[in-house]
This record gives sequence, C-alpha cells and structure tokens, in this order.
Amino acid sequence: MSSFSFNLIKTDTQSKARVGVLNTPHGVIETPIFMPVGTQASVKGVNQQDLANRIKAQIILANTYHVFLRPGLDVLQHAGGIHNFINWQKPMLTDSGGFQVFSLSDIRKIKEEGVEFRSHLDGRKLFFTPEFAVDVQRTIGADIFMAFDECPPYPCDYNYAKNSMHLTHRWLDRCFNRYNQTEGLYEYEQALFPIVQGSVYKDLRTQSAEYIASKNAIGNAIGGLSVGESHEQMYEITDLVCQILPENKPRYLMGVGTPENILECIALGVDMFDCVMPTRNARHGFIFTSEGVINIKNQKWEKDFTPLDNQFTPEYSKAYVKHLIKCNEILGAQIASLQNLSFYLWLVTEARKHITAGDFTSWKTQILSVITRRL
Amino acid sequence: MSSFSFNLIKTDTQSKARVGVLNTPHGVIETPIFMPVGTQASVKGVNQQDLANRIKAQIILANTYHVFLRPGLDVLQHAGGIHNFINWQKPMLTDSGGFQVFSLSDIRKIKEEGVEFRSHLDGRKLFFTPEFAVDVQRTIGADIFMAFDECPPYPCDYNYAKNSMHLTHRWLDRCFNRYNQTEGLYEYEQALFPIVQGSVYKDLRTQSAEYIASKNAIGNAIGGLSVGESHEQMYEITDLVCQILPENKPRYLMGVGTPENILECIALGVDMFDCVMPTRNARHGFIFTSEGVINIKNQKWEKDFTPLDNQFTPEYSKAYVKHLIKCNEILGAQIASLQNLSFYLWLVTEARKHITAGDFTSWKTQILSVITRRL
Repeated sequence: MSSFSFNLIKTDTQSKARVGVLNTPHGVIETPIFMPVGTQASVKGVNQQDLANRIKAQIILANTYHVFLRPGLDVLQHAGGIHNFINWQKPMLTDSGGFQVFSLSDIRKIKEEGVEFRSHLDGRKLFFTPEFAVDVQRTIGADIFMAFDECPPYPCDYNYAKNSMHLTHRWLDRCFNRYNQTEGLYEYEQALFPIVQGSVYKDLRTQSAEYIASKNAIGNAIGGLSVGESHEQMYEITDLVCQILPENKPRYLMGVGTPENILECIALGVDMFDCVMPTRNARHGFIFTSEGVINIKNQKWEKDFTPLDNQFTPEYSKAYVKHLIKCNEILGAQIASLQNLSFYLWLVTEARKHITAGDFTSWKTQILSVITRRL
Repeated sequence: MSSFSFNLIKTDTQSKARVGVLNTPHGVIETPIFMPVGTQASVKGVNQQDLANRIKAQIILANTYHVFLRPGLDVLQHAGGIHNFINWQKPMLTDSGGFQVFSLSDIRKIKEEGVEFRSHLDGRKLFFTPEFAVDVQRTIGADIFMAFDECPPYPCDYNYAKNSMHLTHRWLDRCFNRYNQTEGLYEYEQALFPIVQGSVYKDLRTQSAEYIASKNAIGNAIGGLSVGESHEQMYEITDLVCQILPENKPRYLMGVGTPENILECIALGVDMFDCVMPTRNARHGFIFTSEGVINIKNQKWEKDFTPLDNQFTPEYSKAYVKHLIKCNEILGAQIASLQNLSFYLWLVTEARKHITAGDFTSWKTQILSVITRRL
C-alpha cells in the first residue's frame, strides 16, 4: 500500500482545471499548488516558520545539483534526510539536476551515459547519470523526486529535440530501473516523477507524453517549457500534453511561471507549479500584490505609507520597503519575498476555491485584470 | 512634566552595577539594556516582530547620517517620524552623525562651525553643524538623540584630544541652545544626551564628565571608547567617568561591545549599550550562544545536528546554519542575527536579574567562564 495517492475531487466544467489532494509521506498537498523553490535547501530570505504559517506553503523544492555540492550527501544522510536537515516536516520535492544540463550549458557535456558537469564552485568534474541521479535523490530524501532528463534549449531544431527526447526516454528507463531496485533511506516511500520533453514540436510532445504516461508513475511532469518560447506556445504544448497524461495522476509543470501563466495552465489541467520568480523578483523590488504589480524602486512609492499589501504584509509600508530595497538591506528581500510567495500561494488557493465553487473561468478573467495591473 | 524619568531601583553592593527603569514617550526601558543597531532604519536581517517578540529588544538605534541620506528627512517627516516609518512603536535612539566624523575620516573636514562630509553614496557635500544635527534629529523623531560631537581617533595625542574635547563642549552648548529653542515635531518629547569625550586621558575625561554632568541632561553618554584602545583602558575611563556622571541619570556607553565588555561596564555603572557586533559577527558566522562562542564556518559543525542554541534558535541546527552561511544564503544571516541579538538581550536581562538578586558579581564571573568559551 503506497503512502502516495491522488484524489481528484473536482474537474471544472468550463475549463480543464482540477481540484485534487495528493497524499505524501510528509502530509497532504491540496492541488492546484505552487511550490516555493529552495535552491540550496533554503527558500531565499524566508524562514521555515513563515513558509508554513504565513505563506502557507504545503511543499517546497530543493535543487539536487546544488545540495549535492553543498552541504553534500554525507551531511544530508547523517541528518536523516533533507527534511530533518532544514527542519521542514511537510512534503519536499527535488529536481534531478536535469535543469542544470540546460542552465549550466557552458560547463557540461552530454553523453549517452550521462552528463559531465564542472562544478560552478570549484571546477571539479561531476558525472551525473540517471542511476546516480536516483541514488543522490534517495540520499537527499525528498518525498517526490524527478527523473534525470535533458532540458533542451529554445530555440532547438527538430532533430536535436527529437534525439534529446529519445535520450530522455532512455534515461527514464534507467531511472525507473534504479528506482525499482532501491528503497528510500529514511523509512518512507519516495515517488519518482517522469518528465515529458520534446521542445515545441507537437508530434514529439505527443510521443513523449504517451511514453511518460505508459510508465504509470505516481505523478507526471512537463519539462522544457518557460525556456524562451512564447506564452502561446507554452499553453499549446501544455494543453496537448495534459490531454495525454493520465487524468488520475498529478501533473507538474516545471519552472512556470508568472501569475498569469499559472492560472492559464491550471485551466489546462496542471496541478503543480514551481518557479524562482516570486523570490528572485522580490529581491529586485518587483512585487506581486493582490491589487497589481509594483516596481517598488519607483520614485512614486517614496512617500506612500500604505501597506505593501493589506492582506499579506500589513506591517510594512511601500515607502519603507522601497527604502530597504534601495539600500540593499536584507530586510527588504525578506519582506518582498514573504509578500510575493504569500501572493502566489494565495493565488493558487483562490483558484482552488473557485474551481470548487464552479466559477473558476469568470474569476480568472476578473482576477487577472486586477493582479496584472501595473500600479 | 517630562515624559522622561529614570528610576534607580537598585545598586549592587559589591560592584557599581545598577537596575533602573527609564520612561520614554514610547514606553519603558528596563536597564541595564542593550540596544540593537539599525543603521539604515533596519536592524540588518531581523524584522520588527522578531525584534520585539523573540529578541525582546526594548529600544533600537538608527544612524542620523545614514537615514539623513536615505530615505531623507522629507520622507521621514511625511511618515510622521521614524517610528511610523519603520513600524516600531517602542523607544528609539539616534546618534548625531558624530561617529561618522570618526568612521568616514577620509571624506570629511572638521571646522569650528561644523563638519563637512562628502556623501559616501554620491560624493555630494554635506555640512553638519551642531544646530543642524539637532534639527535633523528633531525631524527623524527618535525618543533619545545625541549631541553632535567629535569622536577622536585612537591613538590621539594629548593636544589633539584636548582641543577636540573643547570643540565637543562648544558644540554641546550650541546643541542645547537649539534643543531648548525647539520642540519635537510629532507631539512627543525628545531627550538630548550629551557625550563625554577626552580620549584615554584621565584629566580630560574628568573635565569632560564634569562639564557634561553640569548640563543636567535627561541622560548622559560616554563616547570615544572602543575605538582601538585596550579593554583595560576602556574600563578605567568608563569607571572614572561613571563616578562623575550623576547617579540619578542613565549612562550610555556608546558602541560597546563584546559580551564581556558589557558585563564589565555594567559592573562600573553603565546602563545602556549599543554595538553592531552581534549583527555584523552574525553575518560572518561568529555566533554567541548561551554555551560559548562558535565560528560556524568551522568544519567541526558540518554534522552537528544539535540546535544552534537550545534557548534562542532551537529550530535550526549548527550544521544547517553552517551550510547557509557557507552558501551566503540570506537565511543564514537572518538566523545568526536573531541568535546573536537574542543572546545579547538575554545577557543584559540576566545581569539585571542578578543585580536585583544581589549575586551579580559571582554570577558575572561564572557566566563569563561559560559564554567566552570557544566551542
């Protein structure tokens, strides 16, 4: 009997949006959900209490490549896994290092066997194979972990995309082999999610989604989007893939995106999202609020003593946060990150409520007109 | 009837340590007290709720020079003063800019009339006079503000120290003249504290302390220490000055210091302290704990999963904080700053309890043997 189960509670009649509950060894995730990114085992600028209590995060991410380098597997294993290491007892997810195949393209070589990286810290050689990525993620110990894939760049010619997709599929078989031969190290089950690739080519995406669906995994992911293609292309591919991936399994769209991207992709049947945007934008002073978008560095906020957001950060005025961000004070990043993540979690929670209530589509139109305003 | 009053509750019989209560327009300060430093209107890495609720800060500082430059007086005045601007309704104190006469010695010229600075941000000329320092601090609106002084360097020859002290005294008269001609801008009273100078020369310190005492101010400060002289010299001068400054007024030793400095100077009759050490050290991984001092970057903490400090930061292990500080994660600075400031406030609160209980001296010996250990 698996610790994982996904219950589809409601599907919208006017869109493909769904409300679900994903049970994991570290608790329940109510979908659709946004997952804050903790690249180096910390969501930048936010402590774990605020993540749980103020932001109401239900699951957070860490990056395998980064935590493999620091603190390293030895530390994570001695800690009894990443949950204990960071003191976060709710669900976690790790990517596989596959995204760094894309983002660190200057310092890696792709081979059939796996990917050779140069550490961005000290230049030492690392060799990630599908088997090793599974072993590493077993040691990290997230509830959900990802298959080792190649995330091709955009634009990417058809042949490259096709070969890359087939490589990802062969790697997927090797991941599942290793996954099935091994068990979690910390007395709880871990789920391996495979990843659909195929760039922006519909026939490849179809083929990939069918292959991934055939694996009958606990959940499935869509990778290789939000890498430079247009929003229309992203939506088109997401729509196509969601129609092929099994209905009774959670669907995770990796690395997406803006609030608008998230609502549109919820409408296409996506259940899980992650993105660095809320925290990265926060540090640069780009604030998402329930009334619209703010560039807090603008002079116009200098004497605006109203709260940054009445709902999420009522304690701090726009003028104060502007001052902090301009002065590069740590507290500026803290407040802005708290605000942006609170906003993202609120947005998906509201989406969930409106899918349940049956007015998701009209709510989406209305809320997008508010939250995408430039204040 | 002044909003300020200082009640001396108990004086230790075996030392000159005192327990007092300083009433201010924004509430009560129980002395001896440590005041966290918020240079640019933010205590680095700590939010105002944690300052009040976890660290239990009773009063915090801001630097006049820095907040004058950013956000500037216009913003602070429109906010209704710095308390409103930062949303901190407990007492605050501002220095006068005098310390920047010392710390920015490359970019300033001292004249009888005042000090010409070059802004460290954009190089523009600023001219601070005693009158202007009072006006600026009226606009900032801290409960307690400081006279504009010259903090001479160390070492400093006798003649320089003597001339500088006389200049500080002439400036003090000009500060009090302006102070007495003006009122607070925000419907509460502000206290001006004069500052004893005189470098490490006892006759000058005696003369300065007598001059400062003659002003009959609400409280008095000792400046120009902790600038490079030995701890023994600091204690000797502090002892001398405390014996001259009025007993029934709070005594503030500016910019001091280590936990040991603070306990030793409490024993000499000091009531108020401030220092950037807890937050600055925190950011570099030097942690004060109730069991001793930790350099968290040391390899020995890599797999130490015990709390950073059971008492103050039980949620985070040494291993995790080491990882965060090594990776330069914002959360590392947040946790370490929370820890160090919690420790400093705990230390002065414990000192207060033990003065009240009558065993301060023996407690001081015992606790110093614990908290100065290198772990």
